[in-house]
Amino acid sequence: MLSEFSLIDRFFARRADAMGRRLEQGELGIGDDCALLAPRPREMMAISTDMLVEGRHFFPDIDPHALGHKALAVNLSDLAAMGAQPQGFTLAFALPEAREDWLSAFSDGLFELAERYGCDLIGGDTTAGPLNLCITVFGSVPPQLALRRDAAKPGDDIWISGTLGDARAGLGVIRGEWSAGETDAATFRRALERPEPRVELGLALRGIAHAALDISDGLAGDLLHILERSQLEARVDADAVPRSNALRRLPAEVQRRCTLAGGDDYELCFTAPVSARAAVEEAGHKVNLPLTRVGTINAPGPSANGPAIHWHDATGAPLTLTLQGFDHFHAD
Amino acid sequence: MLSEFSLIDRFFARRADAMGRRLEQGELGIGDDCALLAPRPREMMAISTDMLVEGRHFFPDIDPHALGHKALAVNLSDLAAMGAQPQGFTLAFALPEAREDWLSAFSDGLFELAERYGCDLIGGDTTAGPLNLCITVFGSVPPQLALRRDAAKPGDDIWISGTLGDARAGLGVIRGEWSAGETDAATFRRALERPEPRVELGLALRGIAHAALDISDGLAGDLLHILERSQLEARVDADAVPRSNALRRLPAEVQRRCTLAGGDDYELCFTAPVSARAAVEEAGHKVNLPLTRVGTINAPGPSANGPAIHWHDATGAPLTLTLQGFDHFHAD
Repeated sequence: MLSEFSLIDRFFARRADAMGRRLEQGELGIGDDCALLAPRPREMMAISTDMLVEGRHFFPDIDPHALGHKALAVNLSDLAAMGAQPQGFTLAFALPEAREDWLSAFSDGLFELAERYGCDLIGGDTTAGPLNLCITVFGSVPPQLALRRDAAKPGDDIWISGTLGDARAGLGVIRGEWSAGETDAATFRRALERPEPRVELGLALRGIAHAALDISDGLAGDLLHILERSQLEARVDADAVPRSNALRRLPAEVQRRCTLAGGDDYELCFTAPVSARAAVEEAGHKVNLPLTRVGTINAPGPSANGPAIHWHDATGAPLTLTLQGFDHFHAD
Repeated sequence: MLSEFSLIDRFFARRADAMGRRLEQGELGIGDDCALLAPRPREMMAISTDMLVEGRHFFPDIDPHALGHKALAVNLSDLAAMGAQPQGFTLAFALPEAREDWLSAFSDGLFELAERYGCDLIGGDTTAGPLNLCITVFGSVPPQLALRRDAAKPGDDIWISGTLGDARAGLGVIRGEWSAGETDAATFRRALERPEPRVELGLALRGIAHAALDISDGLAGDLLHILERSQLEARVDADAVPRSNALRRLPAEVQRRCTLAGGDDYELCFTAPVSARAAVEEAGHKVNLPLTRVGTINAPGPSANGPAIHWHDATGAPLTLTLQGFDHFHAD
């Protein structure tokens, strides 16, 4: 058993030092009571925190390399949804035991992603306890360009990046809710364990998109957050929601469940004015990511009773969906 | 059982909104993918994170009001040790069940302390899981005035705020390692459960102290961090380390263990030049906190083998101590 300090030093602090390319004059990383970090001039710091618990956010047998990746990815995804440039993160974790092989693979997965985005590990905390990972991430964004949830406007298109539902499909395969061929199952599992934060897209959408968020709890629930904060309604074509070829091979009702109420997608859902369609398409090309229009934002009708999504299918026929987002205090 | 969203809204988001007096133009609190926060002009953001686990950092039967206080207090203590002005914090927690009475008391303890320091709750995350609290705290400090661990200078005095050891004495009483009268036991328990972050002192020491840290793992271990980072040695009078009258009523060897290797004190240990003694005393008066000189910082001797603390007693006789700081992967 390694002691706490040698463990931190070996797998995290020394590696953070070796990386340490982003810290600027006066900034300070691991090793003091606090880290010191500053947003870029005339920008603000975008801050988000996510806690991952074994059995709830990942399976006990998850590859620790994938876990290191995912723990940071879900946080970077929040920066992406704000249009913020990643700067650094803190990592606090509780571990039942300090196993070197586990920590080595976990820190590899974590730092490989951190290095791709120039996001420095600047501090943390470790303790013994049931496995729990809490990352807080810091980015920089000009406040007037931040992609806020309350910024949707009537008439905006609703866009989705990439495809939705593969992660939920993977969970269903693992749980035995449905089955898939070996290749498709691997695709789903990869989506579940190694989500890609859409950081470049978030940056490319600055000044183009109005509102944005990342889809972590399912489109149906997450889009409601934009509608609530913007006090608007939406009309969405459920059949237009983008999905992978692998997902298309599952039954239609499974596709709908996975794409609309799946969770763990970490794609961006954003709104942008009709006049910005060409600019949105160009942003998608620039970051090499398909972007799909799935609906429109509308002013609430006279009889509106809170924010609502009016779903329809490809023929325009209305759909009544009773889907809800993933709630951590309810069974999924 | 409350749902996650209504739980957050009722006990945290609405209360944070009601408080929300500190957020400035362009800043953003709870409810988006990220919060937006900026340090003061020409300052940097001081950032620290701490994770508290049941059975390790607090007992399962802890008063939830005290737990809410302590979870934030230990984080504010890190800002204090950096000389930073508190601005905000994020709270991520895992709970086995969402009990309203527990959450109500916990959030009361948390917000009462937050309001005292004008420190806004700006974001968070909640999940089901074994009880775990992770707070990340943000303050603002001019980088040239930050009280860094690597800033001690040969000849500096070593100072301690308040008294040390009461929290460890309280742990010993609970564990049956020693006993105390009812009043003293209550004093100890209060120190253990309701530590006071020395925020005002940290601010008052800007430009006066050289190095500083907060004593969370015991003076013997924590002072070593200053010595390691500053590449210096220390000479400390173990009998001069300040202690409460309650602690003085325990056996001498218990006093020594509690004051030097206690942990959970959250007092500041700092170094300052001899020429600043009057200024240090004045800072102590200003914040109404006793400050005690316990030793001096020295350049390493020619045969030095890493940082070392040379302990002596009140008569000047050398002491050999084998105390070590609290290590979360070893038994205490």
